[in-house]
Amino acid sequence: MSDQAVPRIELLAIPHIPLIQPGDDLPGVVLAAAAAAGIDWRERDVLVLAQKIVSKAEGRLVYLPDVTPSVRALDLAAATGKDPRLVEVILGESAEVLRVRPGLLVVEHRLGFVCANAGVDQSNVAGSDDWALLLPADPDASARRMRDAIRAASGADVAVIVSDSHGRAWRYGTVGVAIGVAGLHPLSDLRGQPDLTGRALQITEVGTADEIAAAAGLAMGQAGEGTPAVLVRGATFAAGEGRLGEILRPRAGDLFR
Amino acid sequence: MSDQAVPRIELLAIPHIPLIQPGDDLPGVVLAAAAAAGIDWRERDVLVLAQKIVSKAEGRLVYLPDVTPSVRALDLAAATGKDPRLVEVILGESAEVLRVRPGLLVVEHRLGFVCANAGVDQSNVAGSDDWALLLPADPDASARRMRDAIRAASGADVAVIVSDSHGRAWRYGTVGVAIGVAGLHPLSDLRGQPDLTGRALQITEVGTADEIAAAAGLAMGQAGEGTPAVLVRGATFAAGEGRLGEILRPRAGDLFR
Repeated sequence: MSDQAVPRIELLAIPHIPLIQPGDDLPGVVLAAAAAAGIDWRERDVLVLAQKIVSKAEGRLVYLPDVTPSVRALDLAAATGKDPRLVEVILGESAEVLRVRPGLLVVEHRLGFVCANAGVDQSNVAGSDDWALLLPADPDASARRMRDAIRAASGADVAVIVSDSHGRAWRYGTVGVAIGVAGLHPLSDLRGQPDLTGRALQITEVGTADEIAAAAGLAMGQAGEGTPAVLVRGATFAAGEGRLGEILRPRAGDLFR
Repeated sequence: MSDQAVPRIELLAIPHIPLIQPGDDLPGVVLAAAAAAGIDWRERDVLVLAQKIVSKAEGRLVYLPDVTPSVRALDLAAATGKDPRLVEVILGESAEVLRVRPGLLVVEHRLGFVCANAGVDQSNVAGSDDWALLLPADPDASARRMRDAIRAASGADVAVIVSDSHGRAWRYGTVGVAIGVAGLHPLSDLRGQPDLTGRALQITEVGTADEIAAAAGLAMGQAGEGTPAVLVRGATFAAGEGRLGEILRPRAGDLFR
């Protein structure tokens, strides 16, 4: 007997995606790379795009020599040891600063999630330290554009997640999480469904979009742009016109600020 | 061209694992189920076991009518609306109580990680509400026993993760995380390796064991015991004699208590 009969989820890293430059047609690049690799698009596939290529294609770059740090940025730069201009950029992307430590600013991003340094990245940008890369302006919208392009090219209804790597409150190491979604609800709500013994489940709201993003993170290669687009095939999720905000705890319900 | 040439990670849910009872030989059950499904064991496979079947096989059940709640458990039961006997069991598994809210106790588990209700579960246990199921006594040791059994049966060096579903500080929904490991280090430390443009990476410690556990969570089915053993094939990780503790922030380095 062969294991080929066992149902499986597959994570396919779309090969040979070139380095993305500002203004590139990212959906076109990803569709071409998938086609060249013989990857077709199927109903209920999920495409996960690393934030970095989305942000670069959208030109979310800031030239640090053009940035004048505020007094607050200078203070936070002294406390963290960061470049004051970079801190100014981080503050511009933040709704609230939650923690300040050497090397680290933990913030609520203007998009509503909590992350380090507002997702602003100096690494791997245009071959220079003088640039900062911001997250996409509206990652749900970025995901929708990719989803629409796949549907236009193939006819298939494919969900799309824009992912980033986030640290966690109580564990070392980053894991992939969703920062934008299209074509799925990020949570799978199973509250009230009975378990195998007929007892009602207690805690059964699952962060499916984040599990998919974490799975894709395994396939992305850990140096960032190696394989920034991963197709997840066979996962179960709640299809629909979801928004990332559905998975974010509102400030009032947050026990850990 | 076919996509079969594209490198992939596969998540295989081992089918037809029976309901586990206290005292069952879990490694034997999983090996038999894999063999019946034609699943072989290969070097660098990772087997992910849901905590619930490990705990059940190890008989980690407490009969609540035998539990006498302490004064502290009575107070916390009043604050949370939980059964005082269940709260007593939770306290016995906890090193520190971090947050108390209706329906919720967030604790540092005696094993060092932060989670809700110390991982103590009333759902799906022996068909009755009178039992509580604790986490395995030593999940790293549970994982090692499974790993040793696979090696003895097949000769293959397979890593094992015991997983649970945890909530997150700032997001709704649970995701799979590792609570025990064998044959791998939970973190992949890439600090100092250059990125694609030659710039040294800043944050490159990846929570690989948690990404693997989250990926397996996708394949486990969300009602718990549907498919509690998932084989992850093709993932890159740091092989070695790791411990879960390597991924846990020590209390002193924790910004969010």
